Parts: sequence; C-alpha cells; structure tokens
Amino acid sequence: MAKRAYNFSAGPGVLPESVLREVQEEMLDYRGHGLSVMEMSHRSPVYQGIIDDAINRVKRLMKIGDDYEVLFLQGGASTQFLMIPMNFCQEGKVANYINTGAWSTKAIAEAKKIGKEVHVAATSEDKDFTYIPKEFNLSENPAYLHITTNNTIRGTEYKHIPELPAGVPIIADMSSNIFSKPLDFKRFDVIYAGAQKNMGPAGVTLVVIKKEMLKTINKNIPTMLDYSIHASKGSMFNTPPTFAIYVVGKVLNWIEEMGGLEAIEKRNIKKADYMFNIFDSSDFFRGTVVPEDRSLMNIPFRLPSEELEKKFLKEATESGFLNIKGHRSVGGCRVSLYNSLPMRAAEDLAKFMIEFEKNNK
Amino acid sequence: MAKRAYNFSAGPGVLPESVLREVQEEMLDYRGHGLSVMEMSHRSPVYQGIIDDAINRVKRLMKIGDDYEVLFLQGGASTQFLMIPMNFCQEGKVANYINTGAWSTKAIAEAKKIGKEVHVAATSEDKDFTYIPKEFNLSENPAYLHITTNNTIRGTEYKHIPELPAGVPIIADMSSNIFSKPLDFKRFDVIYAGAQKNMGPAGVTLVVIKKEMLKTINKNIPTMLDYSIHASKGSMFNTPPTFAIYVVGKVLNWIEEMGGLEAIEKRNIKKADYMFNIFDSSDFFRGTVVPEDRSLMNIPFRLPSEELEKKFLKEATESGFLNIKGHRSVGGCRVSLYNSLPMRAAEDLAKFMIEFEKNNK
Repeated sequence: MAKRAYNFSAGPGVLPESVLREVQEEMLDYRGHGLSVMEMSHRSPVYQGIIDDAINRVKRLMKIGDDYEVLFLQGGASTQFLMIPMNFCQEGKVANYINTGAWSTKAIAEAKKIGKEVHVAATSEDKDFTYIPKEFNLSENPAYLHITTNNTIRGTEYKHIPELPAGVPIIADMSSNIFSKPLDFKRFDVIYAGAQKNMGPAGVTLVVIKKEMLKTINKNIPTMLDYSIHASKGSMFNTPPTFAIYVVGKVLNWIEEMGGLEAIEKRNIKKADYMFNIFDSSDFFRGTVVPEDRSLMNIPFRLPSEELEKKFLKEATESGFLNIKGHRSVGGCRVSLYNSLPMRAAEDLAKFMIEFEKNNK
Repeated sequence: MAKRAYNFSAGPGVLPESVLREVQEEMLDYRGHGLSVMEMSHRSPVYQGIIDDAINRVKRLMKIGDDYEVLFLQGGASTQFLMIPMNFCQEGKVANYINTGAWSTKAIAEAKKIGKEVHVAATSEDKDFTYIPKEFNLSENPAYLHITTNNTIRGTEYKHIPELPAGVPIIADMSSNIFSKPLDFKRFDVIYAGAQKNMGPAGVTLVVIKKEMLKTINKNIPTMLDYSIHASKGSMFNTPPTFAIYVVGKVLNWIEEMGGLEAIEKRNIKKADYMFNIFDSSDFFRGTVVPEDRSLMNIPFRLPSEELEKKFLKEATESGFLNIKGHRSVGGCRVSLYNSLPMRAAEDLAKFMIEFEKNNK
C-alpha cells in the first residue's frame, strides 16, 4: 500500500486517489481492449467515447447546452493569453482586462505584444494584488473584458461575476478555481483553464466557447491558433493530448460522484476554514488577502518573521506537509487546497500550525 | 494478467510493455515521494531530475553535445509547422521545403499562411508521394531546407540526409521515425518530433535546436511561439506536459536498455522484412512504395481488389491485429511497426497474411 503525502502544491497539484487507482488498473489494458489509453489511435471509436464522455461531463457540471463548444487544447493558459486577443480582438476594438496579479499581467502583456490596443479596466496593483477590484471602467469599443477568477499566487478570488453592458463578451481564466464551486457559467462567453490545478495532469487546457463567439473570429489566424478550426474538428484537428483528456474525464466523474459542485464547494469551504480560523483567531499566522476576497483554493500567509517562516517551512516539510512555500515572487507561505486534497490534510495541517504557534510564540 | 493486443496503430502507437508496467507501479507513489508524477510541481527538485534525465537520454541517443538545446514543447508537429517559419525565416529570405506527402504539404501551407515566401525545392507529388526525391534545387537566399524524414501516410523514408551548401540550415520533422535507427543527428540544425509515434504519449513534442540557430530568431514573436524563450527556461517557461515527458524518459531508457539505436534498427529491419518478403514473393499483397524508399515504420499495401481488402481488414481485426486500415486519404491497408511493437506481432501478422493469401487467391 503506497503511503500518500499531503500535497499542497499550487500546480501541478494533488489528484483524487481513486482516480489514480483507476488509471493504474487500466494502464496495460483499457477495459479489455488490450491496450493502454496512451497507445490508442485518437481516431478509434473507443477513444472517441473517452473524449465525448469528458465533454459531456464538462457540460453537465457547467450546466451549459449545445450553444457552447468544449475544446481540449494544448499549451496551457499561457497560449490562451495569445489566442484570446488574436481571435477575439477585432480591428478597431480594444481588449479590456482587469489586472488582479501575475497571470492577468502576463495576459495583458501578450495582447500588447501582438499589437492589440489594451485597456486596463481596473487593477489591484496599488495594494500588491491583495484584493479584487469591485469597480471597473470599460474603454470605448471594447472587444471583451478578461478577468482571472482566481489568483494562484496572491490568493484572491472573485465572489461575483462582473456585470457588463449587453454585447460585451466576458472571458475568464479559471485555471486555479475551475469546478471548485457552482457558478453561473452561462454568463461567460469564453472560459479557459489549464487542467493541472483542479482537473487533471499538466498538458491539456479546457476551453469553453459560446458558439456565437466563433462567428466573430478574426481572419488569417495561424491554423493551430484558430479556435474555429479546433471547434470544427472536435479538438481533433491534430492529435490531442489523449491521455491527459482521459484523466480529466475521470476527475470530472469523481466530482460528480462526490455530489457535484455544490458538495465540492461545501467541502472546500470547510477545508479553507481550517486556515481562515487560524488567521482570524491570532496574529501569528497572518493571511495576506482582505477577508472578503480570500480564495478557497490558494491561501497565502506570513509568520511574524522570515526566520520563523523558514523554521515553519522546514518543520512542516519534515512532518510530511509538502509544497507550502510561497511563490518565489512573493515569499512567505502558501497552501493550495484544491478539490482533490483530502479533508484530513487540511485538518492535520491546522493542528500542526496551532502546535507550531504554541511552541514558537 | 492483462491480455495485450497487437497494435499496429500509426499513432498514438504501441508502447513497451515494461514501460507501462513501471508507470503503473509508480502511479500513486513515485519512488517513495508519496505522490504521482502527475501531481508533482514542475519546480520541484524531484521533477527537475525527471526532465533532466529525459534530456540527457535524448543527447546520448543522438550523440549531440551542449551545442544543442533539447526542448519539450506542446502542440504537436502541427504547431512546429507554424513556429519553424515564424522563428527561422528571416525578412527577405525564402523557406525551402521538399514535399513528400501530407505532412510536408501542411508545413508548406502554414509557412505561406503566415506570409513567408516559400519555395518547393522538390516534390514526389507526380507519383502520389510513393518515392523520396533524390534531387532538389534550392531558391535564392534560402532561410532553410525543411524535410520530413518519414512519411506516416505514404510510407516512404529518407535513407540519406540531403547534402546542402554551407550555411543553409536543414530542419527535419522526424515525428514518425525518430530513434528508429542510428542517424548523424549532428548534421541537422533543428529536429522536431511529436512523441506519440515512437517516443511516448501524445501531448509532448521533442524539439532539438543547434544553439547557433537561436541567435538567428526573428524579433517580436509571441511568447509561447518563441524557441529562445523556451530554451532560456529549460522548457519551463510555463508548466510543461510533465507526465508525458516522464513517460518519454522511460521509453528512451528502454531504447538504451535494448542496446541503443543500432540494436533497435536491426530489430526494425527484421520486423519490416516480414512484410517486404511477402510483397516481394507474390503480387497478392502489393507494397505501394518504391522498394528503395520503403519506410521501416509505416508500411502501406494493397490487395488485388477492394472487396478482398475489406475482407482482409475484417478478418485481421477479428484475429486481434488492430489498426491496419490505411489512412482515410489513401485507402488500402497500412501497418505501423514502431520500435515498441513486439517482434512476435510482425511475425504473427505475416503468418496470417500468408494464410489469407492461400485461402483467397
């Protein structure tokens, strides 16, 4: 029996143990077909069944209908930073972004790099991205508004979807909180998310696009960067990352078996509360985000000194709590409590933190 | 004990059973670290060890030194069709291609689509791409010559590397015959290959670039399409397809344990000869490629009639020989005998074919 660590990695992150066991069992012989999913032609009926199943689960969890395309692409959110303005910012229009941290900043830079006019409709840079801007002002002729619904590094999360004037599409990078709670997904025109935080292994990016948006795509886009080409071929214009999609399907199945997004959210709140209760009951462990915008997924915090942080990180790692160092750009500590992290891991970490505070106050 | 099929798929293709068993064993707990490779931070020392190991194996098998960069990217060869001209065809220069089939044709189309001047230095289109052109003529000011060393659909393979004037880089798509035989890899300036045929699962593309080439890259390329950015970050500008790279490392290890490329080539010749001997000894099964350019990897053939082909495909599939239908664009039959296909599979298929001929002549 494998001993499983408590893995608080910000991504690639923890996966459900039951999913890994299924993948393990099917490794040499997928359901009597005599081959691994890794070895299957993507054009085979068996594999078509696997990708169709994953697409249908996305649609069920999002409660979206056939007016949306569900794509599985490659290149991570970083490639979406390029594809979004290239496809959806038309001549004479302005790409609008709300800047809530490192990833939004990169998305903005990429839109500028390919020559698009960019307007930053709001930013929380003034306070080190420790909150979500509640107000924003769009430019004239906005092509779209782009938001990052959860900020992996700074640990902030949108609690409300911004209200936009009719006709302005809203595009969201949901890489680090996708499927962590119920959301009115139908309010979005484009949703994208790298799989490696809350959905599966690295190497596949979920992209959900309202079909109407496909009609607005710019002309003369390179083939592999054109959403309409991927959509017209059901993500099979070229060989998709077949195995990663298969694992994503299993994780989505696990979410449904856990009771869907409502149940998952309850569980995520309970896990995060282990941390928030510590922050709110003492000033030894200090959450860095304004309470109303705290992410349930990524929770950064500081200790009274850098020496104590070093000591805490060392002792935590030795005690089997892995990957709780803050992102190299901000320092301190950070725990990521993705869907698949067992309740027990958060509970035990909380106990460890309370004990550490007692011993080091 | 899993019953393994004989899998002649053109890609994603068969993998070594021993590799799948190792992946299976390590699925929940990679070497005592308490997590799956899928769950590992790409910034962790353990994962850095995994990718470094894969890079070193590529360098050993190719016998190349530190004057080359070894990258693991996403998006398949189709994305390379775009990145190659975007990075390496400078203003005023001409992208040269030898057209040997469907993949070269797509590479040429993509270079044109992004506005590059393209010259087709040779083509075998006149005879349905059933041979490799031995002569070619470069344009004035060639940026590079691009070749496809093995043609998955038509079943032709280069036996000699084209000789070029000094200063003209040679770029090769080796997706379907990479590491199938020893080759003077040092003669190439850029080599790329989707992993899913001879190296691992779909979702990772090996790109090997002479470092000198990185100095010639065009300016203002979108971040994710710029080889120099991926090279400067050791393929970790963004999250790489961590699990797929791990499997590739294991397949390369398997090649080394099998005795390296010399031993692999001997084995591949022996497997292919099972087919070629049948073609050469009767005209019932008819290889479609001129004998001197026959690929060891992908072997297309026809039967005396479409009715017999249908019957043959049906009976072969029922007897457990999977994926031997020809590509939908050309019809007929095709077997792919990638490195990992067991000798026994080729031997048993040959027996089956001889028996079928006897019964249906």
